[in-house]
Amino acid sequence: MASTIGDLGEFGLIARVTARFPETDDVILGPGDDAAVVGAPDRRVVATMDVLVEGAHFRRDWSAARDVGHKAVAQNCADVEAMGARPTALLIGLAVPGDLPVAWVDGFTEGVRAECAAAGAAVVGGDTVRSERIAVSVTALGSLDGGRAVTRSGARAGDSVAVTGPLGLSAAGMELLASGVEEEAVEKAGARAALDEHRRPGPPYGAGPRAARAGATAMLDVSDGLLQDLGHIAEASGVAVDVRRSALAPPPGLAEAAALLAGYGHRREAADYMLAGGEDHALAAAFPPGAVPAGWAVIGEIREGRGVTVDGRAPAPSGWDHFG
Amino acid sequence: MASTIGDLGEFGLIARVTARFPETDDVILGPGDDAAVVGAPDRRVVATMDVLVEGAHFRRDWSAARDVGHKAVAQNCADVEAMGARPTALLIGLAVPGDLPVAWVDGFTEGVRAECAAAGAAVVGGDTVRSERIAVSVTALGSLDGGRAVTRSGARAGDSVAVTGPLGLSAAGMELLASGVEEEAVEKAGARAALDEHRRPGPPYGAGPRAARAGATAMLDVSDGLLQDLGHIAEASGVAVDVRRSALAPPPGLAEAAALLAGYGHRREAADYMLAGGEDHALAAAFPPGAVPAGWAVIGEIREGRGVTVDGRAPAPSGWDHFG
Repeated sequence: MASTIGDLGEFGLIARVTARFPETDDVILGPGDDAAVVGAPDRRVVATMDVLVEGAHFRRDWSAARDVGHKAVAQNCADVEAMGARPTALLIGLAVPGDLPVAWVDGFTEGVRAECAAAGAAVVGGDTVRSERIAVSVTALGSLDGGRAVTRSGARAGDSVAVTGPLGLSAAGMELLASGVEEEAVEKAGARAALDEHRRPGPPYGAGPRAARAGATAMLDVSDGLLQDLGHIAEASGVAVDVRRSALAPPPGLAEAAALLAGYGHRREAADYMLAGGEDHALAAAFPPGAVPAGWAVIGEIREGRGVTVDGRAPAPSGWDHFG
Repeated sequence: MASTIGDLGEFGLIARVTARFPETDDVILGPGDDAAVVGAPDRRVVATMDVLVEGAHFRRDWSAARDVGHKAVAQNCADVEAMGARPTALLIGLAVPGDLPVAWVDGFTEGVRAECAAAGAAVVGGDTVRSERIAVSVTALGSLDGGRAVTRSGARAGDSVAVTGPLGLSAAGMELLASGVEEEAVEKAGARAALDEHRRPGPPYGAGPRAARAGATAMLDVSDGLLQDLGHIAEASGVAVDVRRSALAPPPGLAEAAALLAGYGHRREAADYMLAGGEDHALAAAFPPGAVPAGWAVIGEIREGRGVTVDGRAPAPSGWDHFG
């Protein structure tokens, strides 16, 4: 029986990865040919791609293979949702070392399958190649189902700024892992959610299309840190964004994680993680006043001007740059 | 001025890669938001992904950055053509070392731009990340424009097997590079086309949709070697494929390359490269007798049975497996 990818071979690996992915009504022709054919009911397709590299975006000692599969799918589907679209199909490129245990690929595949089920999307294709480190590239396709694409550029002064999905937990979780805090201590402190969210961010599926229907004027997925991402809306829309720090209600476990991290020299409050932490894959959007749908928390407003402020003041530098 | 990718930073790199890509009529929303929106005129989108890794799929000492850009786009667009579709949009994931000269990215981008222009496709998105080795993942989208998707599974006994596009040159070109033959000697021998085709495979753009309209019953792009790829048609269609060796007309430069390589211990005829060489990105298809369109060379026929034969006999093992 094959125990490493090298034993399995390229075609064996492809067969193993694509096997047992359920198809959906959006799939006209699934994996196995030169290309797939996916439905685009309103004559438009939303498309986005992210690449995850071992070391930079995940560590095998911090995340199980299944977590990496979940995360790779989640962060791409969050980008589709952020346009106001519904994820329909994914293509997955998997670059793996020849000595990688087949069990890793099986775990990864299971994570992909489970997250696809949560997102309502199907895997329709991909590629497998050999490389020294694991790298995963995911393309997600989506359908606007006749609705409006919500870009970053439509925010207007007077709009409310709102978020849905947990903020700050992923960054706190990464800091817990980087600080070497034992999982038992995390559990005991009630901060388990931070590790979970770092390993398997859970985008609020369905919230994107609902926000579009509610009249969102601008929307994006929070991947680089809330303030940095709101800066993209400010710039694209030609407006200023002001965030009210007191409006940031920490998700369960975040205050506990911050308190635990204080003992490891990280003296930041829960709100700091919410403002600057990355890889949340929550959604942030601007809505006309009164149009904010249920499930979204208003955290600030759009004003005339430019840039992002917190309580009217310039925030400290934040966010991260993978090349910095 | 930034001279390496590390100097440029992630957002600088994205801006540099996406700048100056011309848009096309298929692009509804181009790069710069969470996702792009691409037209799908007949409510279907064709989608395929390939990953190229430095060392396995290209070498920086054998291929210029611009060549890699051409090749990454060409091999994906060939997959779209092989469905009978027209390439419309690409997403490009670029994983690069921090110490990579910016000039490499500029060259790569220029190759992508030029090949997209040849294919009629636009770059609508992508991602850039840091990695130790260069890896390029490309997703190509396409439109069937109301036509039929040509899969691998429709070939019927009595169909003609035909190819369009140069076969064998890419593999011969790689062997010339691997054998350390000086470019001057290649030039002098009249085998330049082999190096060119290895570095920049030129799929026969437009031939895929024309073949679909002509009634192609099965089609694929020749990427793993003609015999191996015809084996995919045989298996998917439940038929046998017989190739007539005498029908394989070597493209200009291939016989010259084979003759030159004979001096380096590679005793193969031009037809051997055509049968077993990979990365051609020509198209192979089955057509009902009499339906083979202009520009295609008939090289064999579909029969009852299974497997692939050459002049009725089993061929030697061929093709390659990146994990083998």
